[in-house]
Amino acid sequence: MSDTSLRGRRYKKISEFREVEEVLAEVIPRIRVKPAVVTKRTRSAVGCILASNVYARRDLPPLPMSHVDGFAARSIDLRNASEDAPVGLLVEGSVGPGESGMKIGPGRVFRIHTGGYLPEGADTVIPQEDVFTDGSRIYVTRPYTPSENVVPAGSDVRRGQLMAGKGEALSPAKASLLETLGVYEVSVREGLRVSILSFGDELTDNPAEAERGKILNTHAVLVSEMARALCCDIVRAQIVPDRPEAVVAAIEEGIETSHLVLTIGGSSVGDIDLVGAELDRRSELFIQGLKLQPGRVGGIALIDGKPVVVLPGLIHSTVNVFNYLAAPVIAHMLETSLEQFIITVSARMAEPVELRRWLDFKRIVWVTLKRIDGGGYEANPNVADASNVSSIAHSHGFIEVPPNKPLITRGDNVAVRIPLWITRGIVGWSRSFIYSSKQDP
Amino acid sequence: MSDTSLRGRRYKKISEFREVEEVLAEVIPRIRVKPAVVTKRTRSAVGCILASNVYARRDLPPLPMSHVDGFAARSIDLRNASEDAPVGLLVEGSVGPGESGMKIGPGRVFRIHTGGYLPEGADTVIPQEDVFTDGSRIYVTRPYTPSENVVPAGSDVRRGQLMAGKGEALSPAKASLLETLGVYEVSVREGLRVSILSFGDELTDNPAEAERGKILNTHAVLVSEMARALCCDIVRAQIVPDRPEAVVAAIEEGIETSHLVLTIGGSSVGDIDLVGAELDRRSELFIQGLKLQPGRVGGIALIDGKPVVVLPGLIHSTVNVFNYLAAPVIAHMLETSLEQFIITVSARMAEPVELRRWLDFKRIVWVTLKRIDGGGYEANPNVADASNVSSIAHSHGFIEVPPNKPLITRGDNVAVRIPLWITRGIVGWSRSFIYSSKQDP
Repeated sequence: MSDTSLRGRRYKKISEFREVEEVLAEVIPRIRVKPAVVTKRTRSAVGCILASNVYARRDLPPLPMSHVDGFAARSIDLRNASEDAPVGLLVEGSVGPGESGMKIGPGRVFRIHTGGYLPEGADTVIPQEDVFTDGSRIYVTRPYTPSENVVPAGSDVRRGQLMAGKGEALSPAKASLLETLGVYEVSVREGLRVSILSFGDELTDNPAEAERGKILNTHAVLVSEMARALCCDIVRAQIVPDRPEAVVAAIEEGIETSHLVLTIGGSSVGDIDLVGAELDRRSELFIQGLKLQPGRVGGIALIDGKPVVVLPGLIHSTVNVFNYLAAPVIAHMLETSLEQFIITVSARMAEPVELRRWLDFKRIVWVTLKRIDGGGYEANPNVADASNVSSIAHSHGFIEVPPNKPLITRGDNVAVRIPLWITRGIVGWSRSFIYSSKQDP
Repeated sequence: MSDTSLRGRRYKKISEFREVEEVLAEVIPRIRVKPAVVTKRTRSAVGCILASNVYARRDLPPLPMSHVDGFAARSIDLRNASEDAPVGLLVEGSVGPGESGMKIGPGRVFRIHTGGYLPEGADTVIPQEDVFTDGSRIYVTRPYTPSENVVPAGSDVRRGQLMAGKGEALSPAKASLLETLGVYEVSVREGLRVSILSFGDELTDNPAEAERGKILNTHAVLVSEMARALCCDIVRAQIVPDRPEAVVAAIEEGIETSHLVLTIGGSSVGDIDLVGAELDRRSELFIQGLKLQPGRVGGIALIDGKPVVVLPGLIHSTVNVFNYLAAPVIAHMLETSLEQFIITVSARMAEPVELRRWLDFKRIVWVTLKRIDGGGYEANPNVADASNVSSIAHSHGFIEVPPNKPLITRGDNVAVRIPLWITRGIVGWSRSFIYSSKQDP
């Protein structure tokens, strides 16, 4: 690309940087689309965002349940049982798993297994190891109190109880519980449809072209995966060449087919800012410049009530602007909370970090965590140029350094955020960690 | 099921309980199968387990790279530049993103953008805001040192460097990094093929039958999702009726089509133990009885060198035996480490817990975490009957109480394990948590 091709193009310099929270507060109320609510079989909705509160449809257990393998009995029959005067009871039958509707008469018991429902009239269970038997009768040598070895009806869950909240990402354990409670279907948000547009003639998805000097479009790989982990469907991931008509067409198509458009690159404050120019022209609102570093040239626009998040091209900026602008916008559109996708742990800084530039910005430092003896974590900062990919790939999470703090001291207690959409757990990258012989969880 | 139908069937009582670690040490060396190694495009292998170490195929950046928008120059030309005697340099051209191969002569500069590769001969970059220009020339008013505003070649990653280890689950950020480093394909383990067999005439997958009194086969939902999160493919999930020939056929088919069989239920120490009888008959090794509570009736068998993990039917036991027997076996067969799927956090117990039974066992208590002011977590124990489903569904993780500890005191510091295959992050279940207005990560 020669200088002449750039003549007459927009030259943009960001004059004002704004707090991320302020930008979100301005943009979010103006978003006018969100994914549809659909009904799914509960077991198939794991990972989806619930669109309404879910309440138990029945008691759990639905009937009093045996806690042991033994004999369901009436405690009243056993009042006077003792070693010297054992009480003999007739085994009338057996309760199979899930069976109900049996009735028990005076002087009688039913064989029952752990988890079986007590017959009507029974209020206690005698463990099998505590009786002796002649085949048709059992002999009991002590009294049993009402509800001994019995799990009362409704002791796990009461009918009508709130089991899961609107906005919750349905976990495997909750899905299983809800079906047990008679909730066979749930209302969930469909995946958020996202288009990812990577701008630049130099980009390719083809390894052979990358070997001949083109730049592999790898930021889009990471951004796609982060969005997918936040319940997005990537409907298009496209490289857009540096031609005004291509930029216009890509943004239009993205808006038409998606709930959200993520752009990568093209937000430089250099000569080349076709994307910024088009967003300026087309959007009802366009804010660029964030008090977030790396990430200060990130921005967000609104077109037809749909957000377009401008992710800068240097990887630390790409990820930070995704985390601080795109992720909250996605969470809003799915009516969910980001916090359920983040684990925050406290850690002690292993090394000091000096951050004297962009002092009144929120500054982001990626760290590697190491568990220390006696509990807790040590955080090793991976301070690097904003273009540095390995520092993020090898990190477990990040810390947010508040404005006007120029220095983190060794030994400082910091909160490390582990956003599961990018780090997926504390993945060690040293050989020693990976090859650990410790097997149990 | 009446008592007569059970006559002549095996009655089993577990006489010995063994440490989980000891059982694994006996079984794991005898496992003779594991999933195949396949080659995948790196970007499509996110979440897969790497089957070999991965090394960088090139330096990153491959060439010295500009840190700013400006002009690539030779520091030697600027030695004597000053406010009083600005040095004028001819703008010879422009370096586009990804372009390389240009050469710079004395007294000349190239226009360059952030991330652009320096032309041969250039060793410094003058930020655009620091120059004035008459169109064809720029004027520089101070010296620039070699490498000022330059990201050196190889400063992010060096060719040949170990980037990811065998056994690592490929994260989105690593996949992106590896492609950037010229690693377009990786060797990964195929998913572990798993059969899940739920035993019992009373079970159904059909909601209408559940409404008429059958028991919904929901444990299999949870077990499937846990296994999937550990890179397993569920090739069959089947309800097996209480008939000896059905049990035999299901186990045979499971062994034939899978690397691993997980059985649910049928491990009771009651009259009904068709599964145990068949495993006793068919397996080269069968261990039942664990020093793990809930979970003590869990077990593991080996048939044709393939493991069969016996998960008991009460939900706490099902999950604990999955975590302590099945998960380590899965990790072994995929040649990976479980630890990368677990986050451990330190927490202060909010309530005491008394655990006087099964005192010499490992005992598992599920807890809800609450972040406390000043960092760290408080853990609220969800002590419940082993059949209690909601206590797991509402928990964030669990603590392992070591043998011979009868009491956890309020205020005790405990290690809470958050196994991502079941809890998927700290999901709040109270309304206040879900509806939190805090949006940024």
